[in-house]
Amino acid sequence: MFERHRQAPLYMQIAEHIARQIDQGTYRVGDAIPSVRAGRKLFKVSPGTLLEAYRNLEDRGYIRARPQSGYYVRQRAGDMLEPPKPSGTARKPSPIQVNPAIQMLRRMAERDLLQLGAAVPDASFMPTRALNQRLTRAVRIHDRSIHTYGPPTGLPKLRQQLARMMAGYGCTLSGDDLIITNGCTESLNLCLRAVTRPGDTVAIESPTYYGHLITLKGLGLDALPIETSAVEGISVPALEKAAKRHRIAAVVVTPSFANPTGSCMPDSSRRELLSWAHRTGTPIIEDDIYGDLYFGDVRSTPLVAMDSSGLVLYCSSTSKTLSSGFRVGWCVAGKYSAQVELLKVAVNPTSTIAPQHALADFLDNGGVHKHLRRLRRQYREQVDRFCESVTRHFPEPIRLHRPAGGHLLWIELPKQVDTAEVFQHALAHKISIAPGAIFSPNGQFRHYMRLNCAVPWSARVDQAIRTIGQIVSELS
Amino acid sequence: MFERHRQAPLYMQIAEHIARQIDQGTYRVGDAIPSVRAGRKLFKVSPGTLLEAYRNLEDRGYIRARPQSGYYVRQRAGDMLEPPKPSGTARKPSPIQVNPAIQMLRRMAERDLLQLGAAVPDASFMPTRALNQRLTRAVRIHDRSIHTYGPPTGLPKLRQQLARMMAGYGCTLSGDDLIITNGCTESLNLCLRAVTRPGDTVAIESPTYYGHLITLKGLGLDALPIETSAVEGISVPALEKAAKRHRIAAVVVTPSFANPTGSCMPDSSRRELLSWAHRTGTPIIEDDIYGDLYFGDVRSTPLVAMDSSGLVLYCSSTSKTLSSGFRVGWCVAGKYSAQVELLKVAVNPTSTIAPQHALADFLDNGGVHKHLRRLRRQYREQVDRFCESVTRHFPEPIRLHRPAGGHLLWIELPKQVDTAEVFQHALAHKISIAPGAIFSPNGQFRHYMRLNCAVPWSARVDQAIRTIGQIVSELS
Repeated sequence: MFERHRQAPLYMQIAEHIARQIDQGTYRVGDAIPSVRAGRKLFKVSPGTLLEAYRNLEDRGYIRARPQSGYYVRQRAGDMLEPPKPSGTARKPSPIQVNPAIQMLRRMAERDLLQLGAAVPDASFMPTRALNQRLTRAVRIHDRSIHTYGPPTGLPKLRQQLARMMAGYGCTLSGDDLIITNGCTESLNLCLRAVTRPGDTVAIESPTYYGHLITLKGLGLDALPIETSAVEGISVPALEKAAKRHRIAAVVVTPSFANPTGSCMPDSSRRELLSWAHRTGTPIIEDDIYGDLYFGDVRSTPLVAMDSSGLVLYCSSTSKTLSSGFRVGWCVAGKYSAQVELLKVAVNPTSTIAPQHALADFLDNGGVHKHLRRLRRQYREQVDRFCESVTRHFPEPIRLHRPAGGHLLWIELPKQVDTAEVFQHALAHKISIAPGAIFSPNGQFRHYMRLNCAVPWSARVDQAIRTIGQIVSELS
Repeated sequence: MFERHRQAPLYMQIAEHIARQIDQGTYRVGDAIPSVRAGRKLFKVSPGTLLEAYRNLEDRGYIRARPQSGYYVRQRAGDMLEPPKPSGTARKPSPIQVNPAIQMLRRMAERDLLQLGAAVPDASFMPTRALNQRLTRAVRIHDRSIHTYGPPTGLPKLRQQLARMMAGYGCTLSGDDLIITNGCTESLNLCLRAVTRPGDTVAIESPTYYGHLITLKGLGLDALPIETSAVEGISVPALEKAAKRHRIAAVVVTPSFANPTGSCMPDSSRRELLSWAHRTGTPIIEDDIYGDLYFGDVRSTPLVAMDSSGLVLYCSSTSKTLSSGFRVGWCVAGKYSAQVELLKVAVNPTSTIAPQHALADFLDNGGVHKHLRRLRRQYREQVDRFCESVTRHFPEPIRLHRPAGGHLLWIELPKQVDTAEVFQHALAHKISIAPGAIFSPNGQFRHYMRLNCAVPWSARVDQAIRTIGQIVSELS
């Protein structure tokens, strides 16, 4: 069952196995897990390896040691907390304020910070070695041709590989249905432009990714924030109600592991959303950039796979899973394909060639599924550790919901705490966080913050979370 | 004077030397140039080398051999032709038709065609080996960091290198003034969006690059074509007159070697344009993508270097000089910098990292100036040969103007020839041309065509031009 040659260390495989048993209820809170003596035999490993596995589970909050007695499943501190309160629906659409966000972004991007602010995965989580080999190989094999223009919609072989990957989660597409872009933001821009005109109103999750807000702002679109739960995402009934009062040109949603909340829409809710879209003819722009990063056993089915109307415009990218610096995203624009293709030519007639070759090669035979399995395990562990550390170091009361995927943690603090201030104080300690207000078009969520968990866990990270907790205490 | 170790072959150096003497009037039409015997001594080369140089000058139309007499400067056939007639100014702005252009573009990009259609430099003109070395080196040195996000405005070292290059032609800028983009088209989009709103009217050259038209279309802008000479570019008096009748939100111009005409605005006309812009407060978007490809002794000064008002938004790219596939362009947005930076974040928060490293390295110490000198000589020779071949193979009457830079040739045919038909017939021979109508928002220039001269000269190319000439004959 546990093999020494597999990529994950043996202790990690055992910890993962027991964590899943706990998640699935094989062991319940209060149950003893196998003693070191019993576990040694059960897992056929040395006591050292087993102790390391148990230590890992302790750090993630799954178990606690009782002296002279053994290891017991505990209620994880994060799981006892209430999730952040669902947001409300805005009364009316509003233009978007992004200046504070832009200013904060500049600071968040500074190199010497511990980057818990921007949703940037540390490069150590990416298959950089394999991709670099393939990039170097692409340079050697394709030589001169990487310096010419390519087709506006992207290299056919990359489109095919991505279509094949999407087939794995229920999307029946051919490579021709995909348009390669310069990242998910370009996808979102093209799709929004295909279905809206400046001055239109776009319904969004509340809170929503500040990059979406900047994009809407750039396109002269107004935002209508819709009630959203940090657990189950956008409320379709609230959307329906709002759509009766306002003309909504499009909806932008991130059904799987939304940024910043990490919420994941249940299938029933996805179906409701699609059914509303069909009834009203409203295009739905689906951001699925975090979709591959699920912690459970199966990937959620994206809207585009459930849809037969062509009203779903699907946007994704390799930036959170393979390489942020390659800038390779894609979109599937349903019945708007021709418009999106025209707009692609109009804004960016070719995406950079060499990274497309390298990625197509990696997707073809580079072990992408193995990489993603490892990445999901790593992010899951990271999120566990962040949750544990936050619940240990932050003053009560806080609200948070351990996400079921992705690498972001959304935390609600007491009302009097302004996270723009937390942000400033944390900077003085060379730590960045993402203050809540940047996730709103009009400065809501001032007492929320988002943490990026895709920073390799270390004592320094734990200490940083303790420091943020102290800042929060002082401001409470 | 002529050195064996220099990059250009000896015969080429001699041909270039004599060609320049002819251009400058040292030898005039009818003059004899040195005989082979005299030339051998003068240039200290073998008779074979000298004959090769003279053969090159014959092929480019500079000289002709008279049996038993020697070599004489001739009137080059292309130079005897009239330039294409100046276009007119449109009565009113019009929305843009681009569907035929898009359809033709799809065919033009097919791989098995002789590419005289798209303005794509053959990769053999690019410093591909040096850039590939530097890309591989960037992968090795920067390793993991090429997979993370970079600053939205681009790598500081690349911005500095480009600012230094621009200093060489009179632009006093710091790296901070430049914004790296995903190519000139992205620059143009960002700049247009910073100064216009959908429904606005933008004055353009007539004809103008179809890519500009597609961009305007994508942004919902109307185009107002202004009278333009194939020799001296846009007519500023015509622009002034048009601006009295219509509200012009911005002007898009390519002062140096415009696409498709190859026209180059004289300095006086550039100053007039700037003075009008200052008087009226109208932003000028300058596309300088061909600016480095001058055939004379000095580079034309771009508008941005002559301007002190901040009204000029400068767009350029490395796509015509170093690598089209790297997708690295830049812009300098004057007083609109903050808006352009915001829009850059909104559409494309980072350009691909690895090519930026490779280019910065090449610009720093890769011999870019040596490369550009060679490239200018090569393009000049290419354009000469294309001119000669067209005047030899096309039925009279035609009009063309040998451009003073760039790699494009704009040809006016008799009115009855529809180059959309020429395009279709040429495709059957696996040759692409660019039909004139795609350079107009409303289907003008049907009896014009553009040829891309950046395809290495060969008997096949000559034969292709003969074939196009025959097609034109049949349709005349």
